[in-house]
Amino acid sequence: MTISFAEFVVQTKEELEKKLADAVSGLHCPEVLKESMLYSLQAGGKRIRPLLLFATMHAFRQDWREGIPVAASLEMIHTYSLIHDDLPCMDDDDLRRGKPTNHKVFGEAYATLAGDALLTYAFEVIGTMDISSDMKVALMSELAQAAGPEGMVAGQVADMEGTHRNITLEELENVHRNKTGKLLAFAAVAGAILGNATKEQVEQIREFAMYVGLAFQIQDDILDVEGSEILIGKPVGSDQENEKNTYVSLLSLEKAKEKLEETIHHGKSILEVLPINKAFLEEICVVVTERKQ
Amino acid sequence: MTISFAEFVVQTKEELEKKLADAVSGLHCPEVLKESMLYSLQAGGKRIRPLLLFATMHAFRQDWREGIPVAASLEMIHTYSLIHDDLPCMDDDDLRRGKPTNHKVFGEAYATLAGDALLTYAFEVIGTMDISSDMKVALMSELAQAAGPEGMVAGQVADMEGTHRNITLEELENVHRNKTGKLLAFAAVAGAILGNATKEQVEQIREFAMYVGLAFQIQDDILDVEGSEILIGKPVGSDQENEKNTYVSLLSLEKAKEKLEETIHHGKSILEVLPINKAFLEEICVVVTERKQ
Repeated sequence: MTISFAEFVVQTKEELEKKLADAVSGLHCPEVLKESMLYSLQAGGKRIRPLLLFATMHAFRQDWREGIPVAASLEMIHTYSLIHDDLPCMDDDDLRRGKPTNHKVFGEAYATLAGDALLTYAFEVIGTMDISSDMKVALMSELAQAAGPEGMVAGQVADMEGTHRNITLEELENVHRNKTGKLLAFAAVAGAILGNATKEQVEQIREFAMYVGLAFQIQDDILDVEGSEILIGKPVGSDQENEKNTYVSLLSLEKAKEKLEETIHHGKSILEVLPINKAFLEEICVVVTERKQ
Repeated sequence: MTISFAEFVVQTKEELEKKLADAVSGLHCPEVLKESMLYSLQAGGKRIRPLLLFATMHAFRQDWREGIPVAASLEMIHTYSLIHDDLPCMDDDDLRRGKPTNHKVFGEAYATLAGDALLTYAFEVIGTMDISSDMKVALMSELAQAAGPEGMVAGQVADMEGTHRNITLEELENVHRNKTGKLLAFAAVAGAILGNATKEQVEQIREFAMYVGLAFQIQDDILDVEGSEILIGKPVGSDQENEKNTYVSLLSLEKAKEKLEETIHHGKSILEVLPINKAFLEEICVVVTERKQ
């Protein structure tokens, strides 16, 4: 029984959306908190991280349905980070993906608390899974490392520190590695753990996913220069306007495109040596480098 | 080799402070993030939750030193909640325990991020403990439940919703149960889990600790009326000034004192039936009901 990548994308996304809605709707807590959590969880994300998780499970010949709770946790962490990043004291964004940001709808206090709730609940959800305690601990520890003070939060702080001053390419990569790379890598690592990968394979998958994350970021910077405003959901050229350090500003558009090719090539070459069903992971490499939004 | 309660308080506090400093100083992350995390972790808290954890381990005849990482996690969660609660969009407090609040020193963005980092890191720290995976999962799941959308965050939301309107005693207790009770109960529950308590004993300890938490809150409300400004670190009568619903405002000062006695009596009666070394837990009941700050 084979399934096409397109069908896989649709099916996994559907099940994930269902899980997110159920997990939050079932909470015994004030309605406004639920509404605020759900508003941002359902604000139309690309769900690239869950897809990477499910595709990695599929690569290790594991039923992807068993990964649904972790995928939900991952989206909760990602969503909390967007809610807090958008706050007036941080990036002060009024819109995200064309919709008003959480604090514009619910106010700053509830936005802050919805973020806190999503971050905490992510760990609770993994705890309820029907897998071994060893696996749960591995997943929760990896998630905390990816999202915490040596991961996503460190990246956000470094990003703020680097704004409005010139940084090197190495510093830029370091920001991306922490701010977005590690959580994206967690997606693949979690898929490998759930797929009973060996410790060595988990590390290879992590390295693969770090390249995917970097490629994702480079394409982001390219799209800001030559993308479609409607598709990317923000004005073209806004990075330059905001004096943001990007691959394009540090390398030129042409060199950034070369770097993108090179990066995804490195990632794919890691897959070559793994004894896995790599088709969907390769499809994700295509999605990441050729995406228009 | 026996130890007095006073010595126990000093020794456990010392080891906890050391662990907190080490855990954060050793992080590979931007300095400003570490400073912001440490500033609030070391802002002179009473450390009542860690004490309850250590005393419960002692009651179950377990070496309290094995609980140090969980005690550190607990203080990280408690501290993150104070940092976020003090933000301008929440309670907008400039001072806490006589010192400038985190955002007054580091700005709102870093305060928000320090809170996020502490919350996430708390789970990472438990993951590194030298105990069974079953125990780690139990501790992380309990912590997430106590702090998340059905625990502390729900309490904070309900508290905000109840401000400036009259609520019933039942609603007030529900707010306290979620906002402070569940995390305080986690302290005792974690101590019981680490002390190899049976499931039934864990639930009895949880109930005991919920009474202790309630008593703590009632005494807080009493101190706001008849405490010393220097000791409580805020103006006497500030609850009434801020139209806060308290045990005193809903019951009268005299009835609140009766309720305090009754509550701690309920708590102590649960200890009676447990085959444990209950001396230090009873001392904590005294500390909670007779404290002046």
